[in-house]
Amino acid sequence: MSEVPPTDEGWFVLHDFRTVDWDAWREAPTHRREAAVGDGVEYLRKHESIADAEEGSSAVFSVLGHKADILITHFRPTLDALSRAERQFEQTTFAGFTTQPTSYVSVAEISGYTTPGYFENPDAADEGLRQYMQGKLTPEIPNKDYAGFYPMSKRRGETYNWYDLPIDERAEMMEAHAETGKEYAGKIKQVIASSVGFDDYEWGVTLFADDPTDIKDIVYEMRFDEVSAKYGEFGTFYIGQRFPPADLGALLEG
Amino acid sequence: MSEVPPTDEGWFVLHDFRTVDWDAWREAPTHRREAAVGDGVEYLRKHESIADAEEGSSAVFSVLGHKADILITHFRPTLDALSRAERQFEQTTFAGFTTQPTSYVSVAEISGYTTPGYFENPDAADEGLRQYMQGKLTPEIPNKDYAGFYPMSKRRGETYNWYDLPIDERAEMMEAHAETGKEYAGKIKQVIASSVGFDDYEWGVTLFADDPTDIKDIVYEMRFDEVSAKYGEFGTFYIGQRFPPADLGALLEG
Amino acid sequence: MSEVPPTDEGWFVLHDFRTVDWDAWREAPTHRREAAVGDGVEYLRKHESIADAEEGSSAVFSVLGHKADILITHFRPTLDALSRAERQFEQTTFAGFTTQPTSYVSVAEISGYTTPGYFENPDAADEGLRQYMQGKLTPEIPNKDYAGFYPMSKRRGETYNWYDLPIDERAEMMEAHAETGKEYAGKIKQVIASSVGFDDYEWGVTLFADDPTDIKDIVYEMRFDEVSAKYGEFGTFYIGQRFPPADLGALLEG
Amino acid sequence: MSEVPPTDEGWFVLHDFRTVDWDAWREAPTHRREAAVGDGVEYLRKHESIADAEEGSSAVFSVLGHKADILITHFRPTLDALSRAERQFEQTTFAGFTTQPTSYVSVAEISGYTTPGYFENPDAADEGLRQYMQGKLTPEIPNKDYAGFYPMSKRRGETYNWYDLPIDERAEMMEAHAETGKEYAGKIKQVIASSVGFDDYEWGVTLFADDPTDIKDIVYEMRFDEVSAKYGEFGTFYIGQRFPPADLGALLEG
Amino acid sequence: MSEVPPTDEGWFVLHDFRTVDWDAWREAPTHRREAAVGDGVEYLRKHESIADAEEGSSAVFSVLGHKADILITHFRPTLDALSRAERQFEQTTFAGFTTQPTSYVSVAEISGYTTPGYFENPDAADEGLRQYMQGKLTPEIPNKDYAGFYPMSKRRGETYNWYDLPIDERAEMMEAHAETGKEYAGKIKQVIASSVGFDDYEWGVTLFADDPTDIKDIVYEMRFDEVSAKYGEFGTFYIGQRFPPADLGALLEG
Repeated sequence: MSEVPPTDEGWFVLHDFRTVDWDAWREAPTHRREAAVGDGVEYLRKHESIADAEEGSSAVFSVLGHKADILITHFRPTLDALSRAERQFEQTTFAGFTTQPTSYVSVAEISGYTTPGYFENPDAADEGLRQYMQGKLTPEIPNKDYAGFYPMSKRRGETYNWYDLPIDERAEMMEAHAETGKEYAGKIKQVIASSVGFDDYEWGVTLFADDPTDIKDIVYEMRFDEVSAKYGEFGTFYIGQRFPPADLGALLEG
Repeated sequence: MSEVPPTDEGWFVLHDFRTVDWDAWREAPTHRREAAVGDGVEYLRKHESIADAEEGSSAVFSVLGHKADILITHFRPTLDALSRAERQFEQTTFAGFTTQPTSYVSVAEISGYTTPGYFENPDAADEGLRQYMQGKLTPEIPNKDYAGFYPMSKRRGETYNWYDLPIDERAEMMEAHAETGKEYAGKIKQVIASSVGFDDYEWGVTLFADDPTDIKDIVYEMRFDEVSAKYGEFGTFYIGQRFPPADLGALLEG
Repeated sequence: MSEVPPTDEGWFVLHDFRTVDWDAWREAPTHRREAAVGDGVEYLRKHESIADAEEGSSAVFSVLGHKADILITHFRPTLDALSRAERQFEQTTFAGFTTQPTSYVSVAEISGYTTPGYFENPDAADEGLRQYMQGKLTPEIPNKDYAGFYPMSKRRGETYNWYDLPIDERAEMMEAHAETGKEYAGKIKQVIASSVGFDDYEWGVTLFADDPTDIKDIVYEMRFDEVSAKYGEFGTFYIGQRFPPADLGALLEG
Repeated sequence: MSEVPPTDEGWFVLHDFRTVDWDAWREAPTHRREAAVGDGVEYLRKHESIADAEEGSSAVFSVLGHKADILITHFRPTLDALSRAERQFEQTTFAGFTTQPTSYVSVAEISGYTTPGYFENPDAADEGLRQYMQGKLTPEIPNKDYAGFYPMSKRRGETYNWYDLPIDERAEMMEAHAETGKEYAGKIKQVIASSVGFDDYEWGVTLFADDPTDIKDIVYEMRFDEVSAKYGEFGTFYIGQRFPPADLGALLEG
Repeated sequence: MSEVPPTDEGWFVLHDFRTVDWDAWREAPTHRREAAVGDGVEYLRKHESIADAEEGSSAVFSVLGHKADILITHFRPTLDALSRAERQFEQTTFAGFTTQPTSYVSVAEISGYTTPGYFENPDAADEGLRQYMQGKLTPEIPNKDYAGFYPMSKRRGETYNWYDLPIDERAEMMEAHAETGKEYAGKIKQVIASSVGFDDYEWGVTLFADDPTDIKDIVYEMRFDEVSAKYGEFGTFYIGQRFPPADLGALLEG
């Protein structure tokens, strides 16, 4: 058996995708639309405001294309809190104008490939690293305009099998990968969350950027990293734009 | 032909997933909601109480994400009893607020890879082992808060083909795998059920834990075991939280 | 080109799967339910009774899980007769409470891998073999409680390619496979039908047994046969229980 | 780059599959059914009669199983004419009792693998070959009772890659394949149409036969041809029976 | 890590596919149809006219087969503008007669494989090349009758892995590929847009032609190019015909 890297886990994550039932929306009388928007805005505001209380964070994005219209991303300390956030949405009038085409469940995770020292003795780590790691585990949603999301796994192919490699080789590839990431410092913020045992791929990756082309660039450049080129398996990609809860009505009006 | 491991079979298993029709729920008048909850609670209670009569066991879980909202797990001595449990659910008013997006049919199974002596002569086994084996075949649902479920098969690849390996190699890998499992004793309870000939993968795995991170950890750690790294093929993963039947109404109210 | 084995064909086969629309059923007034059951029972009885007239055979099974609720299996001398059986079902009131989630079209087939002599000169074969072969081509549905169904193909992989093997190797593997089957004589009756050119896999396999565990056991044991281990590709598996047409109403009442 | 075989193209082809909405049909009052049948028959007659005008050909088949109930096959000189045929169907009352579960778009094609001389100088070819080729490009729908359809591609595997082979090897395999086809002369008529750039596989194959077992036999026998064994990738298979437009009502009545 | 080719990005692209709800259309009263056509034509005209303002370009196509009936292609300088175009369609009465079965999100892209000099110093490039490149980034929709669309990725197989090749080998294959493209100059106009990080494949390819057979020919011929033969992975193919907005009503009338 290959050596398992140490990991630490933080907030649980739900990517809750919603598709607008445009037929119902178009045909609804004004008062129902207003009630739905009012209800939806209140739900979104309440869930975004939780960030102030250090009990998690949430944000809402409009999504391009047929896969979804809206993405609500929730980070919470427990799966229960995620489940409640998902079910409370269903109690809103606005939910009646949506369906849930897909979703993704994961938990924010750091692993010891690139910072083995931290995992051997976190308390001995310098404050900066400790805060950096904490930020990975309980991520604030950054003030950036766009978000991309995709799930991914490491390949267990008959020739290239990540889980069959010595940990040193894996760590080396992960470090080179991290180097690529550093080129995008300031432009891209990335949240990595494990979905092993929770959802169909092994990780969910959320990328935040002010320029959506940076999202294309980082994913493309990283695809040439050995770890992605030989060992990456990618699921569906989503791209969306953040909007303040108050703009929900404007979004629905086109 | 490679040698077939001996197996023994116990209770049949149905994982019955249900999605709530939230639109119907939201729009239903209070008395219909109350009738549905009353009916649903009664169904769940009756099926959970069967455990007392040693005729099987059942439990209900809320499920995160779009794949389902509720998972009802039934263990029964016959397929007929499972079929009745599935059809009797459909007779409830509550069923009218749900659809069945997926399900999984299997039979609790033990195999002789790690305990060949037991299969050669079960009666000669010590009482502890006999009870342990019996517990695998007629599993009680443990008092744990979370459950994960996934189906899996052994790979029949063109290079790595489980069914083409000598039984000694398979047994060795299964034993190493069992060692990994033992590290989670007390934290994880696992039920293995064969779905060969019954459903689309070869086994269904149900993991019970009080901390959902333990579910992530065991699945991740096991992925580095040779048997999973080279020979595991995994289907869809589901994660849910157990709730007492009496809480069905609270769950639906968000 | 590898040598093609001789084959002979018998009755055409339709596996007609139906899902009950439980919402419609639950909400239907008693007289509509009664009309539907009456109509359904009459359809099933009429199609099962055809067996007496040596014009084919039909049987009905309840199916576990979400993939279907009912399986009607028809064997008929012509595709036209199958098509009529499928369309006549749609004329019943009962059909209005069902949808058709899937189906499988094939033709009962024997091949010369294990009995080449028979194909060289069927008339010279002894009476027992001739009747055995005839039974494979025009199969009676046996008096057994359970049925399993799955489609399968032979692998055309880049390393293991069934269609690229010399016929002697194929025949040898098929004979070893048949030996495994003989261990289940009396417990399992198997119907093999080719769906090459008719449906998405190359064969449909129907297994009949009084004990569903025998179905699990034979499929599992055969998976270790070289022909399955290296060359088998399996589709969706279904498991059901036979019921007499008169029990249709009881089935629907839970 | 491997040498590209010369090709010539003829009529465009639409396989338009339709599923009957049996619930709507069953519940429709007689006058609506009659109107639908009248409309449907008129549509089918009009489109079949086009054959007389040498502007294409059309035919209608009943299809077995859940994938579709009806297949309308149109051959036309332009994609526009196909598009109109598809949209004009939607103008009929009958269309209101159907949905379109799938379809296939292609163009009748001949290639120079087996007759390179013809492509070097078609005018120098003898009249018989010229007519044969013309018949491939503007195919009449033969007077046969059954039709099978499936899409296919040539494999671009990591070991067996059709597009990486020298043209001589490809031509040799195609000729051997054609030899197999000739054994079925009179029993099977085959139409080959390219869907490269138009639909999801590279070719659509339509087989016509009076005995559906011949369709099974030719596809099975060809599977042992090297070109199929190593390089064939097959999609979904459909099998249907031709019926004259006037029989549409009888078909719907069971 | 293999060297990443330089890229430049232009307009964002949305391929917005729509399926007509023919049942609703057939049953709608004339005034609702007229309102829908009026609304739809206005939407299409307004979005096509944007081309005059150099703020992007849009065009509409009828699509053959079941995958969609209509394709609206939008090129815009920002993702926001694409999102608005998508949502504004939903505000039309016409949208009520359609669903959105699929879509594709990408960004027009040029890469430095075949013109590395341009990327080293674009300003030093001659005016012709600069205009050519600009035309690739902000493509006008050409005056051609037909359009084909498909998404594609470069293979990351265990033997043939594009992202693991030296950049020289990749550049050589891309140049040979471009040579094939040049044979179709005048007949085919091609728009390449990257969907890395945005959608499920890595690129979306749109081909415009007056003769749809040219689309078949170029895709087929290119399949023999080493870059496609060994490294191309293709998704779903769509084929459609351009129509002026004013013809929307005629299209819907058959």
